Amino acid sequence: MILHLKAGVNAQRINELTTELKAFHIRYQEKDVLITGAGMKTIPVAIEKEVEKFWAFDSDIQLASTIYQKEKRTVQLGDVVIGGTTNHTVLIGGPCSVESEEQIRSASELLKSLNLSVLRGGCYKPRTSPYSFQGMGLEGLKLLAKMREEYGLAVITEARDATHIDEIIEYTDIIQVGAKAMYDQGILRACAKTDKPVLIKRGFGTTLQEFVQASEFVLSGGNPNVVLCERGIRTFETKTRFTLDLCGVAWLQEYTNLPVILDPSHAMGYAYGVAPLAKACTAMGVDGLLIEAHPNPKVAKSDASQQLNYEEFTALKRDLETVAGAVGYKIV
Amino acid sequence: MILHLKAGVNAQRINELTTELKAFHIRYQEKDVLITGAGMKTIPVAIEKEVEKFWAFDSDIQLASTIYQKEKRTVQLGDVVIGGTTNHTVLIGGPCSVESEEQIRSASELLKSLNLSVLRGGCYKPRTSPYSFQGMGLEGLKLLAKMREEYGLAVITEARDATHIDEIIEYTDIIQVGAKAMYDQGILRACAKTDKPVLIKRGFGTTLQEFVQASEFVLSGGNPNVVLCERGIRTFETKTRFTLDLCGVAWLQEYTNLPVILDPSHAMGYAYGVAPLAKACTAMGVDGLLIEAHPNPKVAKSDASQQLNYEEFTALKRDLETVAGAVGYKIV
Amino acid sequence: MILHLKAGVNAQRINELTTELKAFHIRYQEKDVLITGAGMKTIPVAIEKEVEKFWAFDSDIQLASTIYQKEKRTVQLGDVVIGGTTNHTVLIGGPCSVESEEQIRSASELLKSLNLSVLRGGCYKPRTSPYSFQGMGLEGLKLLAKMREEYGLAVITEARDATHIDEIIEYTDIIQVGAKAMYDQGILRACAKTDKPVLIKRGFGTTLQEFVQASEFVLSGGNPNVVLCERGIRTFETKTRFTLDLCGVAWLQEYTNLPVILDPSHAMGYAYGVAPLAKACTAMGVDGLLIEAHPNPKVAKSDASQQLNYEEFTALKRDLETVAGAVGYKIV
Amino acid sequence: MILHLKAGVNAQRINELTTELKAFHIRYQEKDVLITGAGMKTIPVAIEKEVEKFWAFDSDIQLASTIYQKEKRTVQLGDVVIGGTTNHTVLIGGPCSVESEEQIRSASELLKSLNLSVLRGGCYKPRTSPYSFQGMGLEGLKLLAKMREEYGLAVITEARDATHIDEIIEYTDIIQVGAKAMYDQGILRACAKTDKPVLIKRGFGTTLQEFVQASEFVLSGGNPNVVLCERGIRTFETKTRFTLDLCGVAWLQEYTNLPVILDPSHAMGYAYGVAPLAKACTAMGVDGLLIEAHPNPKVAKSDASQQLNYEEFTALKRDLETVAGAVGYKIV
Repeated sequence: MILHLKAGVNAQRINELTTELKAFHIRYQEKDVLITGAGMKTIPVAIEKEVEKFWAFDSDIQLASTIYQKEKRTVQLGDVVIGGTTNHTVLIGGPCSVESEEQIRSASELLKSLNLSVLRGGCYKPRTSPYSFQGMGLEGLKLLAKMREEYGLAVITEARDATHIDEIIEYTDIIQVGAKAMYDQGILRACAKTDKPVLIKRGFGTTLQEFVQASEFVLSGGNPNVVLCERGIRTFETKTRFTLDLCGVAWLQEYTNLPVILDPSHAMGYAYGVAPLAKACTAMGVDGLLIEAHPNPKVAKSDASQQLNYEEFTALKRDLETVAGAVGYKIV
Repeated sequence: MILHLKAGVNAQRINELTTELKAFHIRYQEKDVLITGAGMKTIPVAIEKEVEKFWAFDSDIQLASTIYQKEKRTVQLGDVVIGGTTNHTVLIGGPCSVESEEQIRSASELLKSLNLSVLRGGCYKPRTSPYSFQGMGLEGLKLLAKMREEYGLAVITEARDATHIDEIIEYTDIIQVGAKAMYDQGILRACAKTDKPVLIKRGFGTTLQEFVQASEFVLSGGNPNVVLCERGIRTFETKTRFTLDLCGVAWLQEYTNLPVILDPSHAMGYAYGVAPLAKACTAMGVDGLLIEAHPNPKVAKSDASQQLNYEEFTALKRDLETVAGAVGYKIV
Repeated sequence: MILHLKAGVNAQRINELTTELKAFHIRYQEKDVLITGAGMKTIPVAIEKEVEKFWAFDSDIQLASTIYQKEKRTVQLGDVVIGGTTNHTVLIGGPCSVESEEQIRSASELLKSLNLSVLRGGCYKPRTSPYSFQGMGLEGLKLLAKMREEYGLAVITEARDATHIDEIIEYTDIIQVGAKAMYDQGILRACAKTDKPVLIKRGFGTTLQEFVQASEFVLSGGNPNVVLCERGIRTFETKTRFTLDLCGVAWLQEYTNLPVILDPSHAMGYAYGVAPLAKACTAMGVDGLLIEAHPNPKVAKSDASQQLNYEEFTALKRDLETVAGAVGYKIV
Repeated sequence: MILHLKAGVNAQRINELTTELKAFHIRYQEKDVLITGAGMKTIPVAIEKEVEKFWAFDSDIQLASTIYQKEKRTVQLGDVVIGGTTNHTVLIGGPCSVESEEQIRSASELLKSLNLSVLRGGCYKPRTSPYSFQGMGLEGLKLLAKMREEYGLAVITEARDATHIDEIIEYTDIIQVGAKAMYDQGILRACAKTDKPVLIKRGFGTTLQEFVQASEFVLSGGNPNVVLCERGIRTFETKTRFTLDLCGVAWLQEYTNLPVILDPSHAMGYAYGVAPLAKACTAMGVDGLLIEAHPNPKVAKSDASQQLNYEEFTALKRDLETVAGAVGYKIV
């Protein structure tokens, strides 16, 4: 249950109520807000006078639910706004992994030349084998920060586990909670304590219910700047890497107030399918796209098969502008 | 392996070769064509002189493969062409089930008013429970035929099992092999012996490999007029009815020469998601869409939750025209 | 809803009631029984006096439900009883496909030497490719019938589609409705009209709900002799052919009154795993096992990798006796 | 590739080789062992003389592979040995969550009375909702340590994320890497640096390949004491909580040298299915079982539906002894 407290309730009383109800307390849109589990369906008589308004729920999707707030949330990212009614599809590009200054600089220049604003690049790679390239780590983070400085790009990189979350928060503009780290409360709770935007990727074995509940860890901890990212679920089909769940995206758009970004590169796993899928996503009016691009995909240290080269990325951006236009959106 | 025989080889010799190689023999594009399993990788020396050209394959996707024929096949349906390089997205509409003359007539009038050409309506419903509405059967088929007569629409309906396949072939313009009947060789072999267009729906537990192999039953039996239809696969996600596999569609477009039609209604299972998904499909440049529409979805005898009303269908058609235009396609 | 009519209600009245309620009418355990969909929760006042007892349900699992009948059904197969409280695990053995008289005779002799009673062998193979071995068809059925004659074995073979269901019913002692044919109402309705035992295999993309509902087609049509067979579902895991769903078996044992047989050979897909899985199944107190055995698996025309040779099958039978003994069962 | 170095190679040279080959260096079974990725198929000529023996692999399953070591590894846990050729099935019991001293003491007494040796109890619960009970944390760990002291039991508890891994390592005898934390390199690398036994649970969306590769993080980091735990994968079936993958267990037993433990409680999600599934697992000759038991399951703070009460647990232990005996195993 979500409870908006009346304006006059003082800090001490809020503390008491928070403890009593075993609730989370946040300030949201200039209100003092308490949140308990969805098991609570009515408010105790004793506190009726202190509550301005309340919402009951069927499940623990509460702050993210359109029942609580119908308007889509906005997340400010430098000059760019994600979500809301901006009708922006933010095209986030860059390599799977940061591999060198030369490589990440070339990606930055590509984005600038296309008037794009957000650069992606993995530094801590959540590889499933210890014998694969594990990412450049802190050195990579510093290269991203350098690019931000030089090119005025916002940067996004993935937190793999809780051991380096502080560094990620420090160096990036959007914290990406990776698909394999999505249940990691160490990460989610750290994200709740900052006000930086957080992009949560859906785990490939994760239901929509669990996915949105992960966002509740961040929202109920006090950070309202959450973006969801669908990147493909694991099914019986093996000809493609994962299965992009656009039915699920339609559900998220209908039942949650969070901006939704899509990652067709990871879903497909093969470059030939990235452009048609990106167009499909764009036609749904999504709030953003994550597309992997590499100066020379064949020699990429990770995900070689799915990264576009710069020519393909440039052509795709142009095509997406046309599709976005057809549904009243703009690629930014 | 596919073998194109030279022009001079006579009927008796073709028979001998067919028997010897345990092959299928068809006439395709004015050639005598033999097809064996993909296990055959080289042609016997003895027949080298009689073979004009041959293609070896890694798997039993052969006639449908772009290795054999890169150009997308066309399927003629009255005045409408599905597939090829027409850049047509054929919008097939109509109710889940034929329920009455009044109902199917209203759907026909809707389609005519929107300049659409193909009417859908189930007569033999493949329900999973014996206690649900099973369809109007032959009576429904006759209603569809009447609509074809009166409105000049092509009609499509589903074959549920082999016991009524002859009726389906007789009364409809496109034979729909249902998702639950997709492995039914009784149906597939009957479809192979006609030259009517056949739309094969992917089973919800069916791999892309098996799906395309089902088309090989029809193609290798002599009917080249096959269309594939993706309608959602079954995954762990339960908030939507199925998961529309657009990654799979990208694969089909890349590796097969068959036209591909999509059915977002069955995939989603809920009307609110049909429009966004239909737009997504259209942006991929697909050859057609199957969209369920009912004069009053709330009282529909099957699939009530996923059918659009006529106002929604009309609005969707208009929106799809804009999206189709953005990728160089036309809704017909 | 299931309604037991009182003893005095006459045939004409039963007909009336059947029509009125859109019900199925069967004789079961010396009662006249009407069955409607689960949507019906209360009985009309007008017929209260004619109804002896009735059962309402949450879903269309009705005749198969333990709510209706707690005791497990028995299916008589020659001298062997499947199900009930016999504590029999019927070990059904034989090759994937009938390939020759010599082959199927050797399997028959193996079974006789081990005091087993039921021989399996496919005649119409539901292959997913037209270019694979499709089975011996009618000729195979005749060989099975010959073995029954000579060795006194009951025989089981699979119906692939409705075109040959009459032959299957004629020649076999248990009709196997294959995993790919499980939704085929042509087959299910034909099975409902005979009183021969019917073994329904779960489709690999089929929920337990749909699986048991398939049995309702047969039961509500008048044939009470249904056995369910779990043979593995399709999941994201590819190191094994399918995933044997023993959680599902526990559910079937708890909530349905149908005997349950397991097919670890098809689930696993590899001979090395058949023995451990067969032991696991046996320890659950299942009513039967289907195990593929071939005189020389390496040259088998289908499913070569998963068939046991006769030595392995013999050793397994011995091991299963010990495991069965530990849970109070007997291998027959 | 795994390389066993000859006895004489000195520390400095080992360092050089490790750097040169980008290898992991461990001491295993009194050898100096280097491990590189499976991409390396042959050894450089320059080091041939220093290498005693080497093994090449198809995939990054290397140290865990039967190609490298056929004999099953043993993990010593106080007096109990898990794995090897002991033919022990270690029955680990206890509540889902540690809730109070009284509760965990009663579980300890139950285990002692049944001559069992390992107590489970969650302290950091990886809940998918922030509004659910999150576990007692450090306080719970201290209770587990107290029980170990008083009852001589080994204790196992789950690491949820990397923020508390040091505490887990300090207080428990087996570190459980939870299903949702299985890709967490912060945890895996911490586990690699201790020599305490590590039980890795398979993620519900995790392939067998990825599952075993997770163990390679620990093994290649120097800790040989790894046990795998299958606890059910997520499939389309919803009548049970997950689907226990015993086909996968057969694969693990055939292709890896790691002890395998099963968790039927989490797989099933309902108490009625735990006993039949536990018997099934036992009949496969597994190295252990994790079974949840609670003094009063109805009031449990987590997983109420799947925990056995003490009477059921006691009866199950007795039944498992009989089944274990049938396959030559002993419950310890």
